Amino acid sequence: MKKIEVCFTPALFEHRMLRDNLNIVIVDILRATTSICAAFQNGVKSMIPVAGIDKAREYKNRGYLVASERDGLVLDFADFGNSAFNFISPELVDKTIAYSTTNGTHAIEMVRPFGRVVIGSFLNITALSQWLEQQQEDVLILCAGWKQKFNLEDSFYAGALTEKLMETSSFQLGCDSAEAALDLWKTGEKDPLKYIDKALHRHRLKKLGLDDVLDYTFQMDSCPVVPVLHGDELVNIIKV
Amino acid sequence: MKKIEVCFTPALFEHRMLRDNLNIVIVDILRATTSICAAFQNGVKSMIPVAGIDKAREYKNRGYLVASERDGLVLDFADFGNSAFNFISPELVDKTIAYSTTNGTHAIEMVRPFGRVVIGSFLNITALSQWLEQQQEDVLILCAGWKQKFNLEDSFYAGALTEKLMETSSFQLGCDSAEAALDLWKTGEKDPLKYIDKALHRHRLKKLGLDDVLDYTFQMDSCPVVPVLHGDELVNIIKV
Repeated sequence: MKKIEVCFTPALFEHRMLRDNLNIVIVDILRATTSICAAFQNGVKSMIPVAGIDKAREYKNRGYLVASERDGLVLDFADFGNSAFNFISPELVDKTIAYSTTNGTHAIEMVRPFGRVVIGSFLNITALSQWLEQQQEDVLILCAGWKQKFNLEDSFYAGALTEKLMETSSFQLGCDSAEAALDLWKTGEKDPLKYIDKALHRHRLKKLGLDDVLDYTFQMDSCPVVPVLHGDELVNIIKV
Repeated sequence: MKKIEVCFTPALFEHRMLRDNLNIVIVDILRATTSICAAFQNGVKSMIPVAGIDKAREYKNRGYLVASERDGLVLDFADFGNSAFNFISPELVDKTIAYSTTNGTHAIEMVRPFGRVVIGSFLNITALSQWLEQQQEDVLILCAGWKQKFNLEDSFYAGALTEKLMETSSFQLGCDSAEAALDLWKTGEKDPLKYIDKALHRHRLKKLGLDDVLDYTFQMDSCPVVPVLHGDELVNIIKV
């Protein structure tokens, strides 16, 4: 049986139990990983996760399209921020986008030496779980959190994905965090939007007027893609 | 309104939101903080939390009674381990005990510069919440966890204490972790022992034959004490 482990924040990654043969699912549903799924569904060719602002600016100077935000706000040199709606445009088809966000891309940078990096959101949850079932590797779900802190929305999604994986019967729970995530999901699954209304980050976005994309965030399976990091680029390994 | 924050493991303490004027509740219900409450209810005069094994041995050489375990097993030089039952004995009345455990005492050492250290367990949950209500400080609940990892039993208790504090109406939730802990508690509150049966550490103790004390761990309010760190010693500030 393959194991499922959940890390509630990047700060807990170094203390994980699973060490080898990992598929590492990055989760930052408000908003990076949701936006990445939307982009691939829309036909983007590839995305380059970039952790630092300087590096993002460098990509811009080299002629790339750049999506970049910090604390929910678009950086001045960037072409757009990280709302999923930014990535749904005919102009982006077959393009490569350099992408830097507050939490999500830092998480990707940190874990890439330790396993295969995959992108998870509600938009691709079934496609992702089916793909993970077909692989030999254990699964570590890494919640991007908020500045190293636990956040409710990513942990809630970790529970949803854990449930999907457990339904395949090729997985078992590998840690207490996976048990807890499952309980959070079960608490709120009947009305995810209402459940997530409790989350601090949702209110942070609301204050900034950035929560227009929330309904979209919970449109299960609207983007059946599986973005995987190959070299320095995320590519979709499932045909749209 | 005073705030409640939960840190699910000591590794998250440095990333906490609350910084000043804190009462820090240490939680290691299987087994250190449960045992400490039992000891004070039994009339122990004071307990000295000791993080390292060498330091524990030093106390032994100086003539102190020493309770010490690592990974659930009693260390050879110690007088006893950390089962609550070890601390319920007429011989311990008015005695001072040096106490070192895998997770709990390390957590105390780490946080003591940042606030007043208080000990929490199901045995003293009502006494503790009433005392916290009377104080001016915000409350940070620190789950000792298991070797920096999230564990279900301490997080579950954090939710129980959060609920108690919210009932007093002088507190508000200060972070997503407190929300999540509350949901875990609500999931399992009808049968705590059954809920905790899912926890990995409970199985770890069972393998070692150390789970005889589990029923006792959930005897709510059986020990109405409030152990607080004064200088280097934990003392009970509520008269038994």
